[in-house]
Amino acid sequence: MEKHSKEFKVNAAGKNVPFRINGNELIPYMGVGKYKPTGRRYGPPLSSCADFPADGNKLVPNLKEALIRSGLRDGMTISTHHHFRNGDLIANQIFDIAHELGIKDLVWFPSASFPCHDPLIKYLEDGTINRIEGSMNGPLGKFTSEGKMKGVGVLRSHGGRYQAVQDGEVIIDIAVIAAPISDTFGNSNGVNGAAACGLLGFALADSQYAHKVVVVTDTLVPFPCIPWQIQGNYVDYVVKVDQVGLSEKIVSGTTNVTKSPDRLYIAELTAQFCDAAGLVQDGFSFQAGAGGTALSIGIYFDQIMRDRNIKARFIRAGSNKYPVKMLEDGYVDYILDGQTFDLEGVRSMRENPGHVNTSPFTSYNYHGKGNFASMVDIAILGATEVDIQFNANVVTHSDGYLLHGIGGWQNCIASKCTILPIPLFRDRIPVVRENVTTLCGPGELIDVIVTERGIAINPLRQDLIEKVKGTGIPLKTIEQLLDEAQRICGKPTDPKFTDEVVAVVKWVDGTVIDTIYKLDK
Amino acid sequence: MEKHSKEFKVNAAGKNVPFRINGNELIPYMGVGKYKPTGRRYGPPLSSCADFPADGNKLVPNLKEALIRSGLRDGMTISTHHHFRNGDLIANQIFDIAHELGIKDLVWFPSASFPCHDPLIKYLEDGTINRIEGSMNGPLGKFTSEGKMKGVGVLRSHGGRYQAVQDGEVIIDIAVIAAPISDTFGNSNGVNGAAACGLLGFALADSQYAHKVVVVTDTLVPFPCIPWQIQGNYVDYVVKVDQVGLSEKIVSGTTNVTKSPDRLYIAELTAQFCDAAGLVQDGFSFQAGAGGTALSIGIYFDQIMRDRNIKARFIRAGSNKYPVKMLEDGYVDYILDGQTFDLEGVRSMRENPGHVNTSPFTSYNYHGKGNFASMVDIAILGATEVDIQFNANVVTHSDGYLLHGIGGWQNCIASKCTILPIPLFRDRIPVVRENVTTLCGPGELIDVIVTERGIAINPLRQDLIEKVKGTGIPLKTIEQLLDEAQRICGKPTDPKFTDEVVAVVKWVDGTVIDTIYKLDK
Repeated sequence: MEKHSKEFKVNAAGKNVPFRINGNELIPYMGVGKYKPTGRRYGPPLSSCADFPADGNKLVPNLKEALIRSGLRDGMTISTHHHFRNGDLIANQIFDIAHELGIKDLVWFPSASFPCHDPLIKYLEDGTINRIEGSMNGPLGKFTSEGKMKGVGVLRSHGGRYQAVQDGEVIIDIAVIAAPISDTFGNSNGVNGAAACGLLGFALADSQYAHKVVVVTDTLVPFPCIPWQIQGNYVDYVVKVDQVGLSEKIVSGTTNVTKSPDRLYIAELTAQFCDAAGLVQDGFSFQAGAGGTALSIGIYFDQIMRDRNIKARFIRAGSNKYPVKMLEDGYVDYILDGQTFDLEGVRSMRENPGHVNTSPFTSYNYHGKGNFASMVDIAILGATEVDIQFNANVVTHSDGYLLHGIGGWQNCIASKCTILPIPLFRDRIPVVRENVTTLCGPGELIDVIVTERGIAINPLRQDLIEKVKGTGIPLKTIEQLLDEAQRICGKPTDPKFTDEVVAVVKWVDGTVIDTIYKLDK
Repeated sequence: MEKHSKEFKVNAAGKNVPFRINGNELIPYMGVGKYKPTGRRYGPPLSSCADFPADGNKLVPNLKEALIRSGLRDGMTISTHHHFRNGDLIANQIFDIAHELGIKDLVWFPSASFPCHDPLIKYLEDGTINRIEGSMNGPLGKFTSEGKMKGVGVLRSHGGRYQAVQDGEVIIDIAVIAAPISDTFGNSNGVNGAAACGLLGFALADSQYAHKVVVVTDTLVPFPCIPWQIQGNYVDYVVKVDQVGLSEKIVSGTTNVTKSPDRLYIAELTAQFCDAAGLVQDGFSFQAGAGGTALSIGIYFDQIMRDRNIKARFIRAGSNKYPVKMLEDGYVDYILDGQTFDLEGVRSMRENPGHVNTSPFTSYNYHGKGNFASMVDIAILGATEVDIQFNANVVTHSDGYLLHGIGGWQNCIASKCTILPIPLFRDRIPVVRENVTTLCGPGELIDVIVTERGIAINPLRQDLIEKVKGTGIPLKTIEQLLDEAQRICGKPTDPKFTDEVVAVVKWVDGTVIDTIYKLDK
């Protein structure tokens, strides 16, 4: 199969998009909210209880057996979730087994990948895995950028992943769901068990739409396993292993508050901006991501709320000990949590009814009847690059290497006020640029850029500009920030690419917003 | 459209089944577990967040407006749920509006109907409603039996209703979900609000699969409404009314413990049988229905557990104050609840994490990957008639009138031991008969008949017969019970029917197990 068509179309953002990749036609990005799907939700094959044990016991001896009974064969799409983050022990085992069985050309469809998955490079090399549709971080991304992956990678946001599965763009043949606790029927959750990782929301679409669903756990309880974050009624097989994940490794390296004076200043400035713009008020809401700067901003919000005795209605998280403390001290009614970033998050989700298990369906799915992301008052997010149209990049670095996944970023920029607190440059490479290397988020959805050298508000948001005038907030234009970055670092040179497509970046509606090419070295 | 074809097929139970009703072909019943669906799950049309308000506010001024925006027109299928039981205030309003708008030939697809819905007869008469697919109780059933309904009724179990929607046999055009509490996004639940009714599980399929979903509530809270038993991501419109339901009327008349000496004896005998057969042991489970006899049996179980200091793992309920007390006293780990029958049930579901919100999907859907019903150790259920093949009837009376819905009955008989505690006769009409008037449950799934004059165990269950031998349990054959009934009451005469089909009874897999004809009077 040709890796990608030689023909390209130009999308609404002016980017070239191949007609086809991996044998599938692509729809070029049409603009925010412009593409309207005309199809129907995907319907996996019907099952019958007659084919499942009446006593509910779906245990099979091991993962290999479960994969064989699931009909594992060449070309299938196998999905996993990333709630164990760098402590995932199961994904690699799946492909070890596939390799042992001589299976080829699999598509790995993870909700995210981590350094612990670097051993899969050997299976990308030997043809066991054709491609990854999901985040290609670090070494996997470098491998992709160097054109070594057989198929073309597809990058989707968390919401875009749900949308793709729901819409039938991606048909998951076998979903393998690593679960900290389960019953033999397959009801399972992430809040209990030795390897408790919080929740399993990233595996929701997989459980609902995959043709075969395998739950792998190290802790079995008698039916019913409560809460059933994953419902056994969707599950085909259950496998018991000695250890399903390393819960200490779900703790992200990015959950420490920043100690950098520049970043602390950016955090403080961001909080000041939000306050000056009247966004921090009783009943407000914000997205609290991981990352030292975002954490510090949350702490500023916390302080403002305590000082004024106001409270937030909800925090959309990535939870860790900071939002948990706000919840437990009564400064926020609800944490609407998509993934836990530390063990305090896990504990809180287990104990607090106000710490609510969400999923990409509730929070991010663009082909639903609304989602939570657009209801959030303030979303504070990162970026590798921002350009003078306020377009932003989160997947490639300025040297052209694909090094990050999209996560929920594309979904979160639908918020009422999206703020990117970023340094003006990193290691003398400008972050504010004339053009982003890869377009991930259209500038019309990015409202504010906060740097250590001033704040640029998107001219589309005159309302915000009016609100902060005369409040002492150091406003600049994005062009002024660009000039300053180039004065300090010099004008950066663009990376050189070949015309070989190695990955495409999907927008939240399944259209293609940008194309990533093989590096020319 | 012809009401039904003149041609019939004979199904595996020997019953005549019309080729077609209401223009749709029917699949005759093939035997327990014999029919295997080959299709795919139904996929409703895809939506886009671009068509929904970014701030999540889906409020429209009133129900009429919501129905008009939902595209209400002739021939549509409109669904409602029955968690308010006889306190439902919304279903009638829908058809008042449809009548006012001159809409004709609607299909009403309720999860159950109650006496409060009798005013809909006028719309069945004037053609606003073509037919009911759902329970036709009391006057609605009488109306149907007399051949007055324009279309042919379709009776389904709670699980069969989920299966039909999931499989696309019934396509719901507009689901109207009355909810005691909601946010303007449509997240809603039944545990809070002035008209708290416990849960909304019967509306789950409707929310997931209907083309348009309208939530009607009398209590709005700021986003997020927690818990979201119905997820706003499936909801199109939200309507605020003064009063959504009468929560005092959810209290079923059948939630009082029986005072009849015969029924008390039957209850005691049932509990004795279960104990003698070794079914009441630490970690066991049972289905606790409404109805005075079933309640009394639960109380006997409770007493046995307290005496021996053992506990049940779960109760599948229909909850009320009795299972709630067992839960709160620590004699059962979980109540897996499908509907609350009193306000103690509502309170407990709100307060106790072990009182778990279930749905026909988890508990009953036969076209899933297993369901809960077959995992239950003991199911205690009622019947209007039982025959010498242990076949049972729950929808018609011996006079031929359709007077009841199936409820979860067909689903629950999948349990490990299904027991029907019934009087041998009612008002001098035998309950044990040569043939049931309408076949609802195949005898192979009915294990034990308990009457005030002895217990008959299905010969297929030699294991149970062996277990209770010599324990003093008064065993009889079903033929002995039949003889005794006929000796006392005389041989009953069968009702006379015309050859006009007024309703069909679906089996849990969507096939037709029996046909109900117009009475010949």
